[in-house]
Amino acid sequence: MNSTALPVLPSARDKLLFTPGPLTTSSSVKEAMLHDAGSWHWEFNTLVKHIREKLLAVAGVSRETGWECVLLQGSGTFGVEAVFQTCVPPTGKVVVLSNGAYGERMVLMLQHARIPHVVLRTAEDTISDAQALDATLAQDPDITHVAVVHCETTTGILNDLATVGAVAKRHGKTYIVDAMSSFGAVPIDFEAVGLDFLISSANKCIEGVPGFSFVLCRRAVLLASEGWARNLSMNLLDQLKGFEKNGQFRYTPPTHAILAFAQALKELELEGGVAGRAARYRRNHEVLLAGMTRLGFKSYVPAAVQSYIITSFIFPADPKFTFNEFYRRVAEKGYILYPGKISQADTFRIGNIGRLFESDLRSVVYAIQEAIEEMGIRL
Amino acid sequence: MNSTALPVLPSARDKLLFTPGPLTTSSSVKEAMLHDAGSWHWEFNTLVKHIREKLLAVAGVSRETGWECVLLQGSGTFGVEAVFQTCVPPTGKVVVLSNGAYGERMVLMLQHARIPHVVLRTAEDTISDAQALDATLAQDPDITHVAVVHCETTTGILNDLATVGAVAKRHGKTYIVDAMSSFGAVPIDFEAVGLDFLISSANKCIEGVPGFSFVLCRRAVLLASEGWARNLSMNLLDQLKGFEKNGQFRYTPPTHAILAFAQALKELELEGGVAGRAARYRRNHEVLLAGMTRLGFKSYVPAAVQSYIITSFIFPADPKFTFNEFYRRVAEKGYILYPGKISQADTFRIGNIGRLFESDLRSVVYAIQEAIEEMGIRL
Repeated sequence: MNSTALPVLPSARDKLLFTPGPLTTSSSVKEAMLHDAGSWHWEFNTLVKHIREKLLAVAGVSRETGWECVLLQGSGTFGVEAVFQTCVPPTGKVVVLSNGAYGERMVLMLQHARIPHVVLRTAEDTISDAQALDATLAQDPDITHVAVVHCETTTGILNDLATVGAVAKRHGKTYIVDAMSSFGAVPIDFEAVGLDFLISSANKCIEGVPGFSFVLCRRAVLLASEGWARNLSMNLLDQLKGFEKNGQFRYTPPTHAILAFAQALKELELEGGVAGRAARYRRNHEVLLAGMTRLGFKSYVPAAVQSYIITSFIFPADPKFTFNEFYRRVAEKGYILYPGKISQADTFRIGNIGRLFESDLRSVVYAIQEAIEEMGIRL
Repeated sequence: MNSTALPVLPSARDKLLFTPGPLTTSSSVKEAMLHDAGSWHWEFNTLVKHIREKLLAVAGVSRETGWECVLLQGSGTFGVEAVFQTCVPPTGKVVVLSNGAYGERMVLMLQHARIPHVVLRTAEDTISDAQALDATLAQDPDITHVAVVHCETTTGILNDLATVGAVAKRHGKTYIVDAMSSFGAVPIDFEAVGLDFLISSANKCIEGVPGFSFVLCRRAVLLASEGWARNLSMNLLDQLKGFEKNGQFRYTPPTHAILAFAQALKELELEGGVAGRAARYRRNHEVLLAGMTRLGFKSYVPAAVQSYIITSFIFPADPKFTFNEFYRRVAEKGYILYPGKISQADTFRIGNIGRLFESDLRSVVYAIQEAIEEMGIRL
């Protein structure tokens, strides 16, 4: 395996990941995976139950007020798709508010499932348009569900869940939010926003490792979906029933990722919960933006709607700049950046979530400065 | 987390898992997860490519003769369902040969997808009936696909892939095999058997950790499925195209489980590949069966069709026997058994795959003897 193993020397540390996930996680989170748990055993089932409770607590909601938490194997995308596959009735129709690749991914899911849908697009640097949604819902009574991405990881733009949710609720629609890269670090008032389904993933702001997603939802709305599911593995209602019947996942869970997640939740609590994590990420983002601005880089999204999760920077105009060489040089210094995904501009992205601290952001800015100098690029 | 963490004392070792998976894995496989890999980075992509190549080699097939390997996030069930969701055309019809819970699970998948299907059932201690398949295919020309489970983990029975495959091929049907708990330890001649799709999972006989499944298939058959997929995340054709385009998973992969799997493949090779692993598991099974027989237990499946993967034992007739107490007593001694899943008889199961050696099988038999004595059960 000489040529194929990750080239980690005993004395080297892993490259730091400035991405939207998988992220750099703490040593203790990874060490929690040094155990093999039986997925049927009571110890493991107790841990799964604990995780589901804790996620409700992180969300600031409770079973008593009608909320539920369902874990699902696979990446975050599987969780979003599971909501559509389970909870849209045969006669349903979905409106997707899209301003990036993750909104477009929802559209692809609906196309695959042959679920009727309409798309309301705004430019990638512009938040979703609640007024356009209002007009669409007024003129198309067939629409049953409204779906939007909270932090569009494509750009780092933060959509306004409250204004969209207010419109959805005024029209009596079910409200689905992909909060993949915001949940756990950007406070969300579930009740005030009018949420019905929120989806996030283990390897984002909770700082676990990838392997499963989770859906926080109104129990009554999920229970109402009986018989609609188009997919067995992604049948969220049956998944909930499985947890309630015997505490188990219906099908093999990623046991090690679950153990890591329990540790990650403990560390979130030690950091002061969502508020504490938000403070670190916000500080990370400030250090990054100040440093990149000083180097002459410009961010793509207007500051007013820019999240403190991930930031898109516009390619330097200098023709000597190529992303591949820039990426490689920064990677060789020990930092993994992330390519752009915007269709309307050439950008690259720098995430500042995960087990990263402001000193790490200073280091990566310095490495970027070196790379730019080595490449002879003027900004 | 005092009451909820897995109660592993620093001086204790994990309970050994005598289950069909997740399994007990080697320390080195788990330690491979102590790194955070960037899912977009070239090092990780090289490793994914290497894994796909190695799995083809373990299967004894190659790209040159038209075979492909696609990895998919989620448990093994997700892999089986992805084949149905992607590769059965809108006008398709599937015949499922079922003699246990995993055959019935295929039926549930087809029901969810609203794919026309018929089921040919045999008793849980009887292998799938190739003659009945022949008759069904002769009288129902609408059938396009034949699906069967290799080792039915419900009982441990091993279906005969060759006789079923010969019938499927004579009628020109696509042949899908769930080889979840056999691949890597029970030799399968892909060409001779007439396979089109074989599905297995990371946490079975390759001895990795759970987090993804893999599909080995005829490239031409997968390519022919363009436009049929009913689910985006489970679109196997797009997943293949993603790997071929840039080496990446389309959506976040379970990076740590992938690192563990690369190490597991290395350890499979060190053990002498499929033949070496088969020899250890066969020996494990012999020691188990001899020990349990000596105690007075009877296995459920006739010896001629019993796999050396997992074995079902019939509950003792003594009314003092309850599975819950028996399970708890054996668990407290450090061994996790597995409940039965058979509808026609009361059984429990003991798996002998994973990082287990014949000394471990002797230990578990001894623990079972102690538990039976403590409970005052006569066999």
